[in-house]
Amino acid sequence: MTLLMKAELISIGTELLLGQIVNTNAQYLSEQLNAIGIPVYYHSVVGDNPDRLKAQLHISTKRSDLLIFTGGLGPTKDDMTKETIAQFLGCKLTIDQLAMEQIERQYARRNMHMTENNRTQATIIEGAQVFNNNNGMAPGMAVKNNGHHFLLFPGPPSELKPMFEAYGAPYLIALYPEHKVVHSKIMKFCGIGESTLEDKLQDIIDKQTSPTIAPLAHEGEVVIRLTSFSNSEEQAEQEMVQVIEEIQKRAGEFQYGWDNDRLETVLIEALLGQNLTIATAESMTGGLVSHLISSVSGASSVLKGGIVCYANDIKQKLGISTDLIATEGVVSESAARLLATNIRDQYNVDVGVSITGVAGPEPQENKTVGLIYIGIAIGSNVQVHKMVIGGNRQAIQRRAAKRVLFQCIKAIKKGE
Amino acid sequence: MTLLMKAELISIGTELLLGQIVNTNAQYLSEQLNAIGIPVYYHSVVGDNPDRLKAQLHISTKRSDLLIFTGGLGPTKDDMTKETIAQFLGCKLTIDQLAMEQIERQYARRNMHMTENNRTQATIIEGAQVFNNNNGMAPGMAVKNNGHHFLLFPGPPSELKPMFEAYGAPYLIALYPEHKVVHSKIMKFCGIGESTLEDKLQDIIDKQTSPTIAPLAHEGEVVIRLTSFSNSEEQAEQEMVQVIEEIQKRAGEFQYGWDNDRLETVLIEALLGQNLTIATAESMTGGLVSHLISSVSGASSVLKGGIVCYANDIKQKLGISTDLIATEGVVSESAARLLATNIRDQYNVDVGVSITGVAGPEPQENKTVGLIYIGIAIGSNVQVHKMVIGGNRQAIQRRAAKRVLFQCIKAIKKGE
Repeated sequence: MTLLMKAELISIGTELLLGQIVNTNAQYLSEQLNAIGIPVYYHSVVGDNPDRLKAQLHISTKRSDLLIFTGGLGPTKDDMTKETIAQFLGCKLTIDQLAMEQIERQYARRNMHMTENNRTQATIIEGAQVFNNNNGMAPGMAVKNNGHHFLLFPGPPSELKPMFEAYGAPYLIALYPEHKVVHSKIMKFCGIGESTLEDKLQDIIDKQTSPTIAPLAHEGEVVIRLTSFSNSEEQAEQEMVQVIEEIQKRAGEFQYGWDNDRLETVLIEALLGQNLTIATAESMTGGLVSHLISSVSGASSVLKGGIVCYANDIKQKLGISTDLIATEGVVSESAARLLATNIRDQYNVDVGVSITGVAGPEPQENKTVGLIYIGIAIGSNVQVHKMVIGGNRQAIQRRAAKRVLFQCIKAIKKGE
Repeated sequence: MTLLMKAELISIGTELLLGQIVNTNAQYLSEQLNAIGIPVYYHSVVGDNPDRLKAQLHISTKRSDLLIFTGGLGPTKDDMTKETIAQFLGCKLTIDQLAMEQIERQYARRNMHMTENNRTQATIIEGAQVFNNNNGMAPGMAVKNNGHHFLLFPGPPSELKPMFEAYGAPYLIALYPEHKVVHSKIMKFCGIGESTLEDKLQDIIDKQTSPTIAPLAHEGEVVIRLTSFSNSEEQAEQEMVQVIEEIQKRAGEFQYGWDNDRLETVLIEALLGQNLTIATAESMTGGLVSHLISSVSGASSVLKGGIVCYANDIKQKLGISTDLIATEGVVSESAARLLATNIRDQYNVDVGVSITGVAGPEPQENKTVGLIYIGIAIGSNVQVHKMVIGGNRQAIQRRAAKRVLFQCIKAIKKGE
């Protein structure tokens, strides 16, 4: 069995056709399917309309083997994906007891009354394999019918993504046990732009066929996806190791992690590895750095807290004198240094980190929008990094917070 | 002429099917078309493949009157939109002299050599109305054929958007000079679930034809889009006012804003309106509340700063005694109250706001995941709100932060 499936993504929701939301699910699923070696030939978007969905099913089943649906599994009248597909296939809907119990438990825990229309979320197409929803109510499912596979996922990305990873991808990989070994590995970079990184790697990007090298810019980060199609695990592994070595030789100093790593998870691991605690003093990011750290489960082992020193009189609590404000200003190397050392001392932690800068849209202290100073105080080692970051106010804040995390990781690892 | 066109968006590009980019063009064009009263029935995405595009053209011309294409107008071999549509329609391609001159000028200005394949960018489908590209090379165009309108736009959003606004929208509006007036308005809600809100409004959602009422859940929020198709501005306005009144009678207490409002922008306006300053004491959200406030340009007029009191010894700086921790715990009404009043006093602001809770994944102090207490201290008025929030750790943090902003808005407006 080496035939490749032809996949088509069908997103259901009038909100997409009204332009109220962007179809990020199609991007996510395309990336995931390609990574496991299943080519996507079409994306389609249909509104919450049974007749038009049925018409689309006639078209899509003619041209694709694998149909992946997102959206329309919720409790409201608009949600008609299951009903319409069941009708198209001539199947019944049944209640899935496990899903029903899970929904009832969620209502009980929140002390909320469960209305009748919430029960419809527990119905599935008869004979379907159920995908448990660990982040919401409506389960997903897979139905095999007449040589086609129909996979149904909820629309909210926070439910779709973990469900696809836990159940969807394994289901699809199991369909083709003898397909070539597809290995994929992601290298994550910060502190370097996409085009600069691509320049450094252009010759190997051009000549490599397996693994292929695909750089992609995220906000303030670049990821490189390596994908190899090989005949054996061993060959895949070997090919991968060589290319990774070459990439690291040229740009290793900017790599912070792999695959599902995030800057905040890598930072927490680095802190845990050396048994260090951390506290933050944030001006222009307003608390985003500490929030990102706190978003990781287990953050309480390392994060003691922080001060959002937005106004100047709060900065004074961290040792920024009116003299300093009048001479160098709050966006300055001295300010970043003082904020980092004082938060370290006041909060009695091993690592004090600070950020001060101009988020915009207007310049401040005659300093350019995007200028930032990052201070890091680890024991007697105090460093300040100055840089200029592009984007609008919110992008500058997010990119600046990522740079803080990245510089922290580097500073801590250097101390190993 | 009152027949409505049925529009379909066809995006061309293998990079979309690989998941390398998100189809933001479809969202943009959907929004624009709906705004001028043209309903979009389908989005389709096809790769850079002439056969599959031709197959899609057969399908799309059967079900839609207006076909809007994005992508595939560039100079490389992959770009085959014009050629394929011309073949499908039985038309020739010709050189557009004006476009050619413009492309030549751009090469001259950049002192670059123009290769032969760049000339192909100046070709158009014979008889097409040309849309000038003021932000790139390849022009767009409109072709009328057999009752269908084919509009072709370049893929890069920075070229598509100004071209659509300058030429695409006027072209479409001119097609239907007598089309109805379309008004749309968005009402934004927090603190109420989508299905509960829909339950409250079900009868008017069912009976309303203009404006239509479409609820949509965002994380921790619900928006309702009202869309009216009327014969006059006056009638549209009148219909809208009546429906809004009825919705507000039933669920007005949960509405925080309109259209492009965000919780943080509404909060800042409310604070500015009463000349109030604010500071935050955040435990489980780790700084997200203050960050959201800081993300709005002009936040520095109202936000003084905050303390991220993640560890218990930082909470002690805000008056949470070891006794209180041992008896009621840090996730408690008393803790929320103390954090709010003490941050108000220590940071010398008008509004002190606090949040403490269990973000999960594990329960804490034997308290359930998702339990939160929000404290708000405005002068002598101190209130604490207790609630349970669903989702995974990160969703709980984001939803909790939104509830903090929402409760703050309500508390401040009540004081008006």
